[in-house]
Amino acid sequence: MGKGRFEAFSDGVLAIIITILVLELKVPEGEDLHALHETLPHFLAYVLSFIYVGIYWNNHHHMLHATTRVSGASLWANLHLLFWLSMVPFVTGWMGEHHHAAVPVAAYGCVMAAASIAYTILQGTLTRQRDHNAALARAIQRDGKGKVSLVLYLSAIPLAFVSTWASIALYVTVALIWLVPDKRIERALAEHHEATVGADSHP
Amino acid sequence: MGKGRFEAFSDGVLAIIITILVLELKVPEGEDLHALHETLPHFLAYVLSFIYVGIYWNNHHHMLHATTRVSGASLWANLHLLFWLSMVPFVTGWMGEHHHAAVPVAAYGCVMAAASIAYTILQGTLTRQRDHNAALARAIQRDGKGKVSLVLYLSAIPLAFVSTWASIALYVTVALIWLVPDKRIERALAEHHEATVGADSHP
Amino acid sequence: MGKGRFEAFSDGVLAIIITILVLELKVPEGEDLHALHETLPHFLAYVLSFIYVGIYWNNHHHMLHATTRVSGASLWANLHLLFWLSMVPFVTGWMGEHHHAAVPVAAYGCVMAAASIAYTILQGTLTRQRDHNAALARAIQRDGKGKVSLVLYLSAIPLAFVSTWASIALYVTVALIWLVPDKRIERALAEHHEATVGADSHP
Amino acid sequence: MGKGRFEAFSDGVLAIIITILVLELKVPEGEDLHALHETLPHFLAYVLSFIYVGIYWNNHHHMLHATTRVSGASLWANLHLLFWLSMVPFVTGWMGEHHHAAVPVAAYGCVMAAASIAYTILQGTLTRQRDHNAALARAIQRDGKGKVSLVLYLSAIPLAFVSTWASIALYVTVALIWLVPDKRIERALAEHHEATVGADSHP
Repeated sequence: MGKGRFEAFSDGVLAIIITILVLELKVPEGEDLHALHETLPHFLAYVLSFIYVGIYWNNHHHMLHATTRVSGASLWANLHLLFWLSMVPFVTGWMGEHHHAAVPVAAYGCVMAAASIAYTILQGTLTRQRDHNAALARAIQRDGKGKVSLVLYLSAIPLAFVSTWASIALYVTVALIWLVPDKRIERALAEHHEATVGADSHP
Repeated sequence: MGKGRFEAFSDGVLAIIITILVLELKVPEGEDLHALHETLPHFLAYVLSFIYVGIYWNNHHHMLHATTRVSGASLWANLHLLFWLSMVPFVTGWMGEHHHAAVPVAAYGCVMAAASIAYTILQGTLTRQRDHNAALARAIQRDGKGKVSLVLYLSAIPLAFVSTWASIALYVTVALIWLVPDKRIERALAEHHEATVGADSHP
Repeated sequence: MGKGRFEAFSDGVLAIIITILVLELKVPEGEDLHALHETLPHFLAYVLSFIYVGIYWNNHHHMLHATTRVSGASLWANLHLLFWLSMVPFVTGWMGEHHHAAVPVAAYGCVMAAASIAYTILQGTLTRQRDHNAALARAIQRDGKGKVSLVLYLSAIPLAFVSTWASIALYVTVALIWLVPDKRIERALAEHHEATVGADSHP
Repeated sequence: MGKGRFEAFSDGVLAIIITILVLELKVPEGEDLHALHETLPHFLAYVLSFIYVGIYWNNHHHMLHATTRVSGASLWANLHLLFWLSMVPFVTGWMGEHHHAAVPVAAYGCVMAAASIAYTILQGTLTRQRDHNAALARAIQRDGKGKVSLVLYLSAIPLAFVSTWASIALYVTVALIWLVPDKRIERALAEHHEATVGADSHP
């Protein structure tokens, strides 16, 4: 099976998630700077989640770009990833409202850890079709960043019950780690692209 | 008429339905595990509906993949299917809030039965153009799963007035039946693909 | 300028409008048939608007299919159409809640009349590029249905102040008129398609 | 890297932003013209923001059309632009509710100024790949309109604390400036197109 609709559907869902995130930003009751100030935690939670979903979109984009064939198992692995990402607006809204409370901050980490695991599973189903997706398989041989992220998420969950700020600091750290673009895939793709110029008509 | 925009529009609507489902998950009032516990029925109803819409997307994807031409009647049959699927967030939210009440649980089954019938009608309009969509027609000769699902939905509706849990158990059963991928279409397509490699440039 | 992104953006907006329509369907407070009964006017308003947006999508699809080039003026004419269609969820929600009141029912007609005029303007900007879009220009030589619809909308607006039901009956009539597929464009396209088979690779 | 998914994702997000803008338009409580009258400031704020997002979509469309290659930096510059545009429904809703208050009106200007700067950054990352995107680089040599807009936004922010109406008048002025289509890019593209007819199969 090809990847056109697979990409289109994922893009659609990610675009909607990133946009309905902002629906959690309630229009302030008041009309002065104080009202805006009260929205600040929500706003910061929104910025963080926007960056996270953006990172997922970017990585998803790169991963699919290095893929030529998508199996039925990958369709479900992808829906599984999208399921956890669709929970992001929910936990973002909750954490934005109760950023001093342990459970909402821990819940944010749980969803992020689940999305991270779902991404790894998706990567696995895609690389299993080795003959088709060899470029991808080569690119992610050592998924160091992914492992570090998961460890940080899993640390942030219990840490939230000690200090919510320390926990949130870990989430910010993961986002910063990923904002550095994934050179491995870009490099592998550049090589792949040089080898297949002309054959790769679709972007 | 071709199928590019047909697929794109369906993908768009399904992507939005699957994502606005989560808007029914209200951010909890409290900030402890108890607040999260109260969200649990909503969350489970959300998971079930997410899987249902995912199944419809997967099957729709496979069905259209085996289709080469789309008639005007199919456009309306597709909108009819999307109409019933667009009711899913409504009945999910209602059932999530009142999972002990017969009417909301039965309403969920009504929408699912209507979507199931609408899918069969769409399949019918697509296979009627036999010369174009022969691969699809061969693949779904005996739509056993579809018939079983409809029987289970139609049983779940009156059953909700006896026991809502038994009714919900039937909905879960249908979801599990479909999570097993539809080998028939995949196999028929694989054969078709082998016969037309090169001609089938779009995924 | 080509039409790929033009279609994609229109599809996106129409898909979202058709789906957020359902967000106006509030989950009922109660849990019995009575609660569902109270939702009925909302539901019927939803069905009507769903069909309207579906008709616009179908016609837009056909019109663009018969178009090969899109000017800058058409981009804005299209946004103008999408603007009025984006008002549909608003007036649907209002009419659903106050179907006995003249102003909401008349407001529905105003938005529909504006969308109808916007569609005619868009058709005008597309056919002005005659050499590129000759197939479309031939197909819509006499836009009878469009004119009848506009007259019915404009009659329904003052009629709402006499009888809201008579006004709503006119809206239903227009929907029924359009549900009959537009044979003219389909026929002209079939002829065009036969003349250009092979050249028209994208649907 | 190609631009297909880049455009599709941007279109998706912009389509959703333009459509969820209308969700800020609350269905009026009453059922007479007075209720509609109270919605008027919201409606006008909605019209203004709809035009702004439409302008961004149009310009984004033209800019990408003149682009052949998209770097990793551009992906993030684009997400940065989409971030600020995703704030538009929030500030539109706030300004619509409190159009006499300085802070909401100034906040609208801040988001618009940020989006304007983000657009300039995106333009910069795209033109940096000069050999690929030369047509674009030529087209925007002197981005006069962009600079004027930014100056007007930055003037409108402090002006809101003197007179909100003067500030809003500046926002309307910027919208009018941009509604005049950008002849520069269209002309440069027309030249480019003539030089590459046949090679430029995708719109």
